[in-house]
Amino acid sequence: MVNYPHQVSRKVTGTSIRSKKEVNFANRGMSFETAINDSNNYYLAHGKAVIHKKPTPVQIVKVDYPKRSRAKIVEAYFRHASTTDYSGVYKGYYIDFEAKETRQKTAMPMKNFHAHQIEHMAQVLQQRGISFVLLHFSTLKETYLLPAQPLIDFYQIDKGSKSMPIDYIRQYGFEIKMGGYPSLPYLDVVEEKLLGGDNFEQ
Amino acid sequence: MVNYPHQVSRKVTGTSIRSKKEVNFANRGMSFETAINDSNNYYLAHGKAVIHKKPTPVQIVKVDYPKRSRAKIVEAYFRHASTTDYSGVYKGYYIDFEAKETRQKTAMPMKNFHAHQIEHMAQVLQQRGISFVLLHFSTLKETYLLPAQPLIDFYQIDKGSKSMPIDYIRQYGFEIKMGGYPSLPYLDVVEEKLLGGDNFEQ
Repeated sequence: MVNYPHQVSRKVTGTSIRSKKEVNFANRGMSFETAINDSNNYYLAHGKAVIHKKPTPVQIVKVDYPKRSRAKIVEAYFRHASTTDYSGVYKGYYIDFEAKETRQKTAMPMKNFHAHQIEHMAQVLQQRGISFVLLHFSTLKETYLLPAQPLIDFYQIDKGSKSMPIDYIRQYGFEIKMGGYPSLPYLDVVEEKLLGGDNFEQ
Repeated sequence: MVNYPHQVSRKVTGTSIRSKKEVNFANRGMSFETAINDSNNYYLAHGKAVIHKKPTPVQIVKVDYPKRSRAKIVEAYFRHASTTDYSGVYKGYYIDFEAKETRQKTAMPMKNFHAHQIEHMAQVLQQRGISFVLLHFSTLKETYLLPAQPLIDFYQIDKGSKSMPIDYIRQYGFEIKMGGYPSLPYLDVVEEKLLGGDNFEQ
């Protein structure tokens, strides 16, 4: 039984590589993750926000220090992330989010979310941070920003065993409109719906 | 002739150093990094803040996927961090900091700081985040919180080639008093000096 993080397994399957070609921002040759990183680079370059992807958590077991050459890690293992993948600051607000994608058309599998990530999001909300997930449906070519609270609510009912219907995501989340710059302008949604609207309940 | 403000000079009297020896986090068998992580765990457990150390950035080159066992990274290299080591949220404020220690008694070597980390701190300040460094002088058993702005100022004059005198750190930074819980109560300084006082210029 091979046991590695979901994010890695996605990268090494042939199907996910195919699906990447189909998606909207992939028309620019971008995967979902690349589109997020591209958008964060755009926000950073334009002084709009400072948001970075955290490094992949790795448990380092053995390192070689060869002469005349840099240190080489020769044994290490992937660890589950204890937090979300992305965090940073936007106009003084703490921003914290996770990104997940699926080829399914009607639901997002909840196995994509780990209990400690859900707990982390609840902790962030308690500290008045802004927390959400970016959910990409690659076959539908639709991407949603779902605030953390409805995700936590659903997870608590469901205990992470089922799938979150896209209708639920459409009801409590916000579609991210694409076509301009950056590739995935999720901060527009944060600004309009979470900060400007009445949906930011903290 | 050492010349620093009265309030700082009080902190370095012999009595305070003696009392620190009894309560220094090193006497609890903790390294500087362990003391920071311990404090972050304390803050998290008490609902005071959500601040984590970011994973070590690693460039993964080769991964083996053995049958019946988890994925094993067999070739990887350390990368320079493009941001700071610690970030999170405290009462809605974005917190971002780096920690450095030295055995020197009179200065902190500036080679400890990379240009892109300094740039990152400036970007965080521009977004109204709270950024600083925790500087530990292990021989002196003194730890200071130095806000990012005076660090950036010094770095720009110095271009990272020299050392930052401890007098400069004492003038523009704040000593972190130890002896209680958590091991390194740096958020007390953030609360009193950066948020509550008139030193938070953003």
